[in-house]
Amino acid sequence: MQSIPLILLVCACGVVALIFAWMRARWISRQDPGTEQMVTIAGHIARGAQAFLNREYRVIAVFVLSVAAILVFTGWLSDSDTGQSPMVAVSFFVGAFCSGAAGFIGMRVATKANVRTTNAARTGLAPALDIAFSGGLVMGLCVVGLGILGLGGLFLAYSELTDWTTIRVIEVISGFSLGASSIALFARVGGGIYTKAADVGADLAGKVYEGIPEDDPRNPATIADNVGDNVGDVAGMGADLFESYVGSIIGAMVLGTGFLTVFEGAGAALGSISAVLLPLVLGAVGILVSVLASYFVRVKEGGNPQRGLNLGEFGASAVMAVAAFFVISWMLPGEWTATTSIVGERVYTALGVFLAMLIGLAAGVLIGLATEYFTATTTQPTLRIAKQSVTGAATNIISGLGTGMYSTGIPAIVLALAIIGAFSTAGLYGIAIAAVGMLSVTGIQLAVDAYGPISDNAGGIAEMAHLPAEVRERTDKLDAVGNTTAAIGKGFAIGSAALTALALFAAFMQQTGLETINVAQPNILAGLLIGATLPYVFSAMAMAAVGRASADMIVEVGRQFNEIPGLREGTASAEYAKCVDISTAAAIREMVAPGLLAIALPVIIGFISKDMLGGLLVGVTVSGVLFAIFQSNAGGAWDNAKKRIEGGMNIDGVMLGKGTEAHKAAVVGDTVGDPFKDTSGPSLNILIKLIAVVALVIAPLL
Amino acid sequence: MQSIPLILLVCACGVVALIFAWMRARWISRQDPGTEQMVTIAGHIARGAQAFLNREYRVIAVFVLSVAAILVFTGWLSDSDTGQSPMVAVSFFVGAFCSGAAGFIGMRVATKANVRTTNAARTGLAPALDIAFSGGLVMGLCVVGLGILGLGGLFLAYSELTDWTTIRVIEVISGFSLGASSIALFARVGGGIYTKAADVGADLAGKVYEGIPEDDPRNPATIADNVGDNVGDVAGMGADLFESYVGSIIGAMVLGTGFLTVFEGAGAALGSISAVLLPLVLGAVGILVSVLASYFVRVKEGGNPQRGLNLGEFGASAVMAVAAFFVISWMLPGEWTATTSIVGERVYTALGVFLAMLIGLAAGVLIGLATEYFTATTTQPTLRIAKQSVTGAATNIISGLGTGMYSTGIPAIVLALAIIGAFSTAGLYGIAIAAVGMLSVTGIQLAVDAYGPISDNAGGIAEMAHLPAEVRERTDKLDAVGNTTAAIGKGFAIGSAALTALALFAAFMQQTGLETINVAQPNILAGLLIGATLPYVFSAMAMAAVGRASADMIVEVGRQFNEIPGLREGTASAEYAKCVDISTAAAIREMVAPGLLAIALPVIIGFISKDMLGGLLVGVTVSGVLFAIFQSNAGGAWDNAKKRIEGGMNIDGVMLGKGTEAHKAAVVGDTVGDPFKDTSGPSLNILIKLIAVVALVIAPLL
Repeated sequence: MQSIPLILLVCACGVVALIFAWMRARWISRQDPGTEQMVTIAGHIARGAQAFLNREYRVIAVFVLSVAAILVFTGWLSDSDTGQSPMVAVSFFVGAFCSGAAGFIGMRVATKANVRTTNAARTGLAPALDIAFSGGLVMGLCVVGLGILGLGGLFLAYSELTDWTTIRVIEVISGFSLGASSIALFARVGGGIYTKAADVGADLAGKVYEGIPEDDPRNPATIADNVGDNVGDVAGMGADLFESYVGSIIGAMVLGTGFLTVFEGAGAALGSISAVLLPLVLGAVGILVSVLASYFVRVKEGGNPQRGLNLGEFGASAVMAVAAFFVISWMLPGEWTATTSIVGERVYTALGVFLAMLIGLAAGVLIGLATEYFTATTTQPTLRIAKQSVTGAATNIISGLGTGMYSTGIPAIVLALAIIGAFSTAGLYGIAIAAVGMLSVTGIQLAVDAYGPISDNAGGIAEMAHLPAEVRERTDKLDAVGNTTAAIGKGFAIGSAALTALALFAAFMQQTGLETINVAQPNILAGLLIGATLPYVFSAMAMAAVGRASADMIVEVGRQFNEIPGLREGTASAEYAKCVDISTAAAIREMVAPGLLAIALPVIIGFISKDMLGGLLVGVTVSGVLFAIFQSNAGGAWDNAKKRIEGGMNIDGVMLGKGTEAHKAAVVGDTVGDPFKDTSGPSLNILIKLIAVVALVIAPLL
Repeated sequence: MQSIPLILLVCACGVVALIFAWMRARWISRQDPGTEQMVTIAGHIARGAQAFLNREYRVIAVFVLSVAAILVFTGWLSDSDTGQSPMVAVSFFVGAFCSGAAGFIGMRVATKANVRTTNAARTGLAPALDIAFSGGLVMGLCVVGLGILGLGGLFLAYSELTDWTTIRVIEVISGFSLGASSIALFARVGGGIYTKAADVGADLAGKVYEGIPEDDPRNPATIADNVGDNVGDVAGMGADLFESYVGSIIGAMVLGTGFLTVFEGAGAALGSISAVLLPLVLGAVGILVSVLASYFVRVKEGGNPQRGLNLGEFGASAVMAVAAFFVISWMLPGEWTATTSIVGERVYTALGVFLAMLIGLAAGVLIGLATEYFTATTTQPTLRIAKQSVTGAATNIISGLGTGMYSTGIPAIVLALAIIGAFSTAGLYGIAIAAVGMLSVTGIQLAVDAYGPISDNAGGIAEMAHLPAEVRERTDKLDAVGNTTAAIGKGFAIGSAALTALALFAAFMQQTGLETINVAQPNILAGLLIGATLPYVFSAMAMAAVGRASADMIVEVGRQFNEIPGLREGTASAEYAKCVDISTAAAIREMVAPGLLAIALPVIIGFISKDMLGGLLVGVTVSGVLFAIFQSNAGGAWDNAKKRIEGGMNIDGVMLGKGTEAHKAAVVGDTVGDPFKDTSGPSLNILIKLIAVVALVIAPLL
């Protein structure tokens, strides 16, 4: 195969990412973790996080092996040429392993970076930012590195070791995406339940039992709360974006097979599979760009860390756009004509593909900015919520829900325009390339995302270790920026999930030979309706799980206060591990039912009718995106409205601040927003991608 | 035309309904309104309601005349044979007039029935139920009577006075539905904003200003609150169901034109237009059934009014099913084959059409029962919310939101099965007939719905007039049942809105010659996405409107307490009219923007691309139904969870009741639920039908 050197180069970029991540991780380890007390606290958090991951991975291992066995079995039953191959199980296993490994490494490093960030904050803002961001970067680079390495390696292996056609190779590789999705499901849903059970539990327990704040060392749930940041916001977000990243590339590769015969000897730089390999190459280039852009992230003492992070993110996007132009011009012919079952005959151009990629990049940035507008501490929407808090919790909640609803408008229009734009420039392939474009700088995007919870943890450790106020001030500065980047990251994760799901959906249609999804047909309309309902039911399950788990936590905290003499006075230590255990057990127990629903439903519907499954996919994607944005942004806005009130503000002559009635109302909103923005909302990203990838994997059976 | 006698008979049924309503209204007027104080209070309420309606109708008149002018203009520009006819403006005007008249009469009678119900409750439960239900029945019969009379009259007039084809006649009649939708939009949205601005305002103002409860006569907003029940829950619900009723019949008539040529001399009882007339005849029969069933509604002293109401509703459904069998067997041939653009060639049977109608009836009942399960005071979901109130407002809110989300599952599955079932028994015509079936007993359904707010008002009057406790106990008994029937009515309104929208959507496709709505096409997918977003933005606008209006109310109440000496002590009277004015002005002002959005968007999108409009219709219907159910049921569940706590309950050894912390938390939930269940949720019913009917009316222009 003439493209072997290129694929090896792609894999090499993956290796570069991993080496770079390893160097940064080692550098972090060498930093001073601070006082003995800080080391003790950080040890609790790290052990708690590790304990959760161990138990979660044990459950996932059972799940992965079961699904792999089913895949081998159905593959063995299938027709050996056109049906599903048993080798899908191998792809699936590798995908699950890569995603799991990325989460494992990312979280280990994050739980080292947190305390070292605190310690660095004792000397200044710049070194603290450096460590927190480096911690995030390790997660980001592991995700893209393992993603590209896994995909490139499997592609090379299947192409060289079998006599399969390219279409067959891609079909089998789609199992990689299923593996990534499975891990993401458990990491996002389980992690989301964990983190909010601990957070809500710590918060309410503190209030119920004599006014002990949630980050007071006497609160037994405080360690679980800090573990939750790592489990949910680092590992969960990482697995989410790993899935998007891999899914968008595979979706584009499947659609790229539509050009195989056209490119046959038509002057494309890499022959027939140029369009198939393009998404992989763009991913590899994105890795190099992310590594480069990581050097832009710096802050001067007394400056605003936001500027540095923005420079890294937007700088990476700009460089990526330029690089992509050259890559696409080189890899694709200037113009070609192709006929596919869905689109029919049309003319494609390399420029069109480049424009589709630009559209994806721009859509990601726009959705991020819209998210920032609706949730930042400095904008109108959070100000309105803060004002409405003066008349109590009810008006605060109504205002927050309204903000969440409004906030769906702009992202929906951006996505609608992106879909139309990418299609008009490069057909269905264009939509998939737009998804790849949006996700091409995932390395740095995720670094900025994961920086947030690390800074949050650093602040918690400063508080628990009773460090001087200036340290907490510095970590608060990092954390405030982290809240904004977290909100933007969530918007980005949802937007990319939507485009990825659409790319997978288009790939599903191409694989099953579905030419239309005509919603005027009743079974398709019924599928659409049921699909659209899924995000509601799934969210309800996630929220109920948080409710049950946090109730367990409150009971346990009460028990410790009653049974441990001296805990209330601060002379005895709380049994943190018990609380960690409760959150862990609850998360593991509660993630199973929604997980099974998400996997079983598309399989059942698919075997009833593949058209109905098509309707289901569209319904779950459209409804899921909107419901996720609604929940995430309402949650983000409540959080920052509370922060705004805490910062002190004067509304029509009434001073607001901590301890006022308005603040109490805002705390209610924040608590409602917690599962919204960190459990049920983000879980929907996984839901829509997972259902699409399950459909794609079972496509050969339908 | 051979069918003239039949259509005259249909119109006669409409007249019967109106005469019967008139007799009941006169009977109510003759009842004793009670003490002087009661008459004074009721006078305030009636005048407030009348004042609102007058101002609302003035705005609507401007709107109706403007739209009529546009319709004349576009009709005059159109091709005179195939384009839109200027006569659509006449249909539109008649539709708006009939809907407005039904609302006017219904509300006038409701504001007489409320105080007479209170007075009757001084002697016993049975006479009180009789008056309250009669008040609702007047509204119900006016809606179906004017609906059938308007449709039948226009059909007869156009058929006899012009040389139009039947297809053309139906096309022009669709303007009637647009008129009904326009009134419904303003009545539901304006009424919803009014009622919740007054309710939330009265509630919060009472709390903010020294603990005066919302139904205390010293609270200046209390009259506005009672006016709101009539404006929102009587007139608004009436206009909503009027629109569904008319829309479902017109949708089925349009689809019935697909059989015109087949029935030509094929032995159908009424010749070619049998299938066109069937929905009208079913509606007429439904009127007779509703009148008959109204006699089932009785209660023994000390008995439960719920039984009587259930007997009326379910009895009507059963009788209707039997009657429909004979009507359909008589009107349609036993079997026929027809070819339509969307479905292609298929065989239809009279039995199949009957089954479709049964499916609609059953779906309505099932959705009502599911709604009852999720919102009744005796079931698990409200118990869970009550329990979660112990740990505060945040857990109460989370639990209520979760309940609302869960509750979308069953209605969605019921609707999905109804769509598949009705289609498989009788094609697209079957889906429209299912909608007609669901709405055939609207007369009695709406009577049961409107009975709720009348009882609620009766209780308020008893409280304000300081009547003995036993009176309040009796009205409370009526009111408690009213809450359940209101919840069921809301579920029914949403379900019927969904089926009606689908019927109109199918009619739109047939009119525009759209054969497929292929969501794999990017512009259709974009339309779907934007359509699905509309309910979120529309709800946000409605909720923000309630927030602003209730804030105005709170300020006004504060002013009165400060400026009117003796008000606080109960020695001076509040200026109720000022508060009524504020709610009125706010509702009128705030209903314009969402109204314009709902009307302008389908027109704009339609002229961009009719496929995209098709996508928009599907998106807004599916997303709107789910978001409406979510909001309505969450609101209903919060309301009854609060009632449950007020009733006193023992949870794990903790006694709950009025004044406890749990009760305070439940009040927060109830307040959040108010705009959810009475403003934004029900507004979505209108949104989805209005957009569908706008599309249908502009169809000839596309």
